[in-house]
Amino acid sequence: MKKANSWLFEEITPDFYQIFGIEKMLFSGRTRYQKVEIFENQTFGKCLVLDGKIQSAEKDEYIYHEALVHPAMILHPDPQVVFIGGGGEGATLREVLKHSTVRRAVMVDIDEEVVALCRKHLPSFSAGAFEDPRAEVIYMDAWEYFEKAGEAFDVAILDFSDPVPEGPSVRLFTREFFGMVESKLREEGIVVLQAGPASAGFTDLLASVVSTLRTIFPVVNYYSAEVPSFGGEWGFALGSKKHDLFSLSPEEVALRIRERVRGELKFYDEITHRRFLSPPKHLREAVREEIT
Amino acid sequence: MKKANSWLFEEITPDFYQIFGIEKMLFSGRTRYQKVEIFENQTFGKCLVLDGKIQSAEKDEYIYHEALVHPAMILHPDPQVVFIGGGGEGATLREVLKHSTVRRAVMVDIDEEVVALCRKHLPSFSAGAFEDPRAEVIYMDAWEYFEKAGEAFDVAILDFSDPVPEGPSVRLFTREFFGMVESKLREEGIVVLQAGPASAGFTDLLASVVSTLRTIFPVVNYYSAEVPSFGGEWGFALGSKKHDLFSLSPEEVALRIRERVRGELKFYDEITHRRFLSPPKHLREAVREEIT
Amino acid sequence: MKKANSWLFEEITPDFYQIFGIEKMLFSGRTRYQKVEIFENQTFGKCLVLDGKIQSAEKDEYIYHEALVHPAMILHPDPQVVFIGGGGEGATLREVLKHSTVRRAVMVDIDEEVVALCRKHLPSFSAGAFEDPRAEVIYMDAWEYFEKAGEAFDVAILDFSDPVPEGPSVRLFTREFFGMVESKLREEGIVVLQAGPASAGFTDLLASVVSTLRTIFPVVNYYSAEVPSFGGEWGFALGSKKHDLFSLSPEEVALRIRERVRGELKFYDEITHRRFLSPPKHLREAVREEIT
Amino acid sequence: MKKANSWLFEEITPDFYQIFGIEKMLFSGRTRYQKVEIFENQTFGKCLVLDGKIQSAEKDEYIYHEALVHPAMILHPDPQVVFIGGGGEGATLREVLKHSTVRRAVMVDIDEEVVALCRKHLPSFSAGAFEDPRAEVIYMDAWEYFEKAGEAFDVAILDFSDPVPEGPSVRLFTREFFGMVESKLREEGIVVLQAGPASAGFTDLLASVVSTLRTIFPVVNYYSAEVPSFGGEWGFALGSKKHDLFSLSPEEVALRIRERVRGELKFYDEITHRRFLSPPKHLREAVREEIT
Repeated sequence: MKKANSWLFEEITPDFYQIFGIEKMLFSGRTRYQKVEIFENQTFGKCLVLDGKIQSAEKDEYIYHEALVHPAMILHPDPQVVFIGGGGEGATLREVLKHSTVRRAVMVDIDEEVVALCRKHLPSFSAGAFEDPRAEVIYMDAWEYFEKAGEAFDVAILDFSDPVPEGPSVRLFTREFFGMVESKLREEGIVVLQAGPASAGFTDLLASVVSTLRTIFPVVNYYSAEVPSFGGEWGFALGSKKHDLFSLSPEEVALRIRERVRGELKFYDEITHRRFLSPPKHLREAVREEIT
Repeated sequence: MKKANSWLFEEITPDFYQIFGIEKMLFSGRTRYQKVEIFENQTFGKCLVLDGKIQSAEKDEYIYHEALVHPAMILHPDPQVVFIGGGGEGATLREVLKHSTVRRAVMVDIDEEVVALCRKHLPSFSAGAFEDPRAEVIYMDAWEYFEKAGEAFDVAILDFSDPVPEGPSVRLFTREFFGMVESKLREEGIVVLQAGPASAGFTDLLASVVSTLRTIFPVVNYYSAEVPSFGGEWGFALGSKKHDLFSLSPEEVALRIRERVRGELKFYDEITHRRFLSPPKHLREAVREEIT
Repeated sequence: MKKANSWLFEEITPDFYQIFGIEKMLFSGRTRYQKVEIFENQTFGKCLVLDGKIQSAEKDEYIYHEALVHPAMILHPDPQVVFIGGGGEGATLREVLKHSTVRRAVMVDIDEEVVALCRKHLPSFSAGAFEDPRAEVIYMDAWEYFEKAGEAFDVAILDFSDPVPEGPSVRLFTREFFGMVESKLREEGIVVLQAGPASAGFTDLLASVVSTLRTIFPVVNYYSAEVPSFGGEWGFALGSKKHDLFSLSPEEVALRIRERVRGELKFYDEITHRRFLSPPKHLREAVREEIT
Repeated sequence: MKKANSWLFEEITPDFYQIFGIEKMLFSGRTRYQKVEIFENQTFGKCLVLDGKIQSAEKDEYIYHEALVHPAMILHPDPQVVFIGGGGEGATLREVLKHSTVRRAVMVDIDEEVVALCRKHLPSFSAGAFEDPRAEVIYMDAWEYFEKAGEAFDVAILDFSDPVPEGPSVRLFTREFFGMVESKLREEGIVVLQAGPASAGFTDLLASVVSTLRTIFPVVNYYSAEVPSFGGEWGFALGSKKHDLFSLSPEEVALRIRERVRGELKFYDEITHRRFLSPPKHLREAVREEIT
């Protein structure tokens, strides 16, 4: 492996960065909404970076996307109509469409240019999902979509980028927005979202999201998975009208995967489910603290 | 938080680094055995770096050291005499001495200068452990120690730095060395060691260590814990003559902690134990692959 | 000015680098001969990097190219036929063609892909020079060209990249090659070449080139100019059959520029000429040392 | 040369840095006035960095300090009493004391801790100057010193760090301060100061300093010298009541050096003097522009 000449600097904190060697830059520029960099790195393969934050890397995006999608989908007794917010790479859509129960998946992403860039440079991330007749892609702000939408969903999957101060996602991590989503969920509806880092000392966003969801949903779960290119443990929060991840036995998880999922899962299985239900101590404490 | 002027570059792979802002350098120089850097970082507090690899950071070293020490100590029915290989900061010793069953802890570290530097600049890492009358510190190569030692141990904890090609630890990750350790273990003896990264795509050392231990011990376990300053999941392997982590119920873990441990544990508890027994899928596969 | 996400690292020495923020990557990839990166940097504008070394930056390439071309062209009494070795960006050609005496300029560059990339992404660097009817571009190794060429030249300008161990230019900085060039020069012929850094402590290549030229040419001059994007002073060496830069008065330089040069010179004038003839002390000593 | 683990990042512009490998950190911390880093770098030797800007490097500080001190000292017919503002390393004092005409040198530096750190870690920079009976060091703000001082000087050498917005030097680059200095100069008095970068595109401070001096002194000169560790050409401005650098012939420079200077000069000589009088074109234009 030869040392790269150019390096992508990702700020984790102002005095802790991770840096990725750029073997080949596939795209770098600005869309109407954000700065985009797509490049090849020898360790992680093709990588997508938005506003300086890594979103997906070829080698480990499966961890993030399976962790985001499958717990909610498996928890739901019969997910037929699914909402996806964000998710420009198409990998969230890809995972949703693996579920044979799904009749319709509506993906709402604000940035048409990012979707086009990903389809061009990262085709394996969507793996044909955009061509699936069950999929509809709408280029619109998710807030605006929910203001207008009449449709109701079984599962809503929020795959928005982190709410950085000037970024396009800030409004989408608020009580108001979660309330709008809740109002569009069917009776057994579930919402799940990526909720930022979950490593010890980095759980502020996750704790605050969990706390906010608890004001809206009777059942709230959280769990985490380690995504190496993200530099550690990543957090997810789930709000549900009825169903609790803790009520789902590992055996039932294995059964539902066998019955419903077409294609291979590389990360999520019944042992991973059990792992999700045994969070690191710092996470349990962060989430508890926040409630009080 | 003001941007630092100097930065410590830690190579994870040749095209993936993590870099730490150096708020204040407390020591930088070479001992007889290795390059040493001790500095303050605003995110992680005081950090110890040997030969360019971070060993311990104030904010999260408790995760690493508790994960290294307590599973083996709790698994053993009555650990009285404990061996520690390496562990210059004194934090492994600190955790061992929290166990009230321990009568004697022998720490063998090759680098007296590193131990002295840590006692001077990182006193909170050992927290008085070196002054405990049960502790003995010997400055010697661990291989040489075992060639000469007559003493037998209940638990051996190997806290050596990663076996980089020219580093001092290469010999200490071999079948020969593990065999020497085994021969000094009492009937119910257990060895545990830090075994490098455990993130997806980075498990080569861990898989190979597990595979090697399986040729020596009837029972071999592995588990992992995320250490943010290490950039992700870290792996541990355990070889035992009799006892299996899977035979220990969460309730029994909670009970033994209550009965035996003096002082607070910030990371290890019965839920963490259950988490250890549900490893990420890639880890299960890496370890399985290696055996065949 | 917003901080860049990606940075180009240029090694000056193994423990001294300069790094350029990449505002936008215009191209990154490999040709048959070398790694190429073309990007925009807010400080220096569009930049061309070959094998990790910066070759030209929009904001200051005029310094390098004027310093390379004009002293030799002005020193020659009537330069009509000019050879250019390398010079893929077309900026050397651009400067040569400013001289109204020139009837024909032959540019020989090994890497057709680099020339095409520069014409596409850096059109202002050549500024139409490739379309000038006096210009001919040949894609060939310069060594091979001189083995076969029958044509004789008034001035030969060698704009090869630095002779890094595995790079394509190593052979082109040898006594053999300089001898081949000399044999194709007309009676009043002059050769000039870029000869690497000229800063205090970095003059090895320049001193060695001057020393080698002295074994071939009766007159050898050297001079330097500061190119900010190169990180300091850059060196040039000139070998001549008859003419000496020291014999040219500032007044004569001013006169010849007025008479012969069409278009503006932004760097080279009679005071710059005088500056060239008063080199920094370390350079005088480096070149002197080398002869003995 | 082995790659360093830690690197000092020096911002030249927000998207252009130079970075220095830290072989060994000798000191890092904060004084009452500024952040200080002293380290060893294999390329440049021991380096002093204040508030993130390199001030002096062992290998090339002689260029900066000789360029700062000797033109003014040689230009003055008989410099006996010399003022030095700043200059904590003691290298400016060292150069001043090489002049046999000097009876007294008063150095006023605000930061006693920096002076002490330099004497401890960089003794070769002052080379015994602090022990010279002709030297007096006063720890005080230079502005305050001139408000109170009764003494008059032949030459005033201002070696203050660059006027960064929150740094301690901002007030010392104003018309008010230069006026205070002028009022303490004897009849043939000369002031000289370091005036920041002089590379093409980086001359704002230098141009503004020259322009300001012209409102106070009948004669104003400027010149530049390349300091590799500073990343390029460095600028100096000189204000004088009577004497002009252009009136001093190279022969007279050589003579005065021989007659007055004890010890070796490694950078300044009669050819360097001539070089100073032939500035790069961009510098001539920058300084001219500023006047209008």
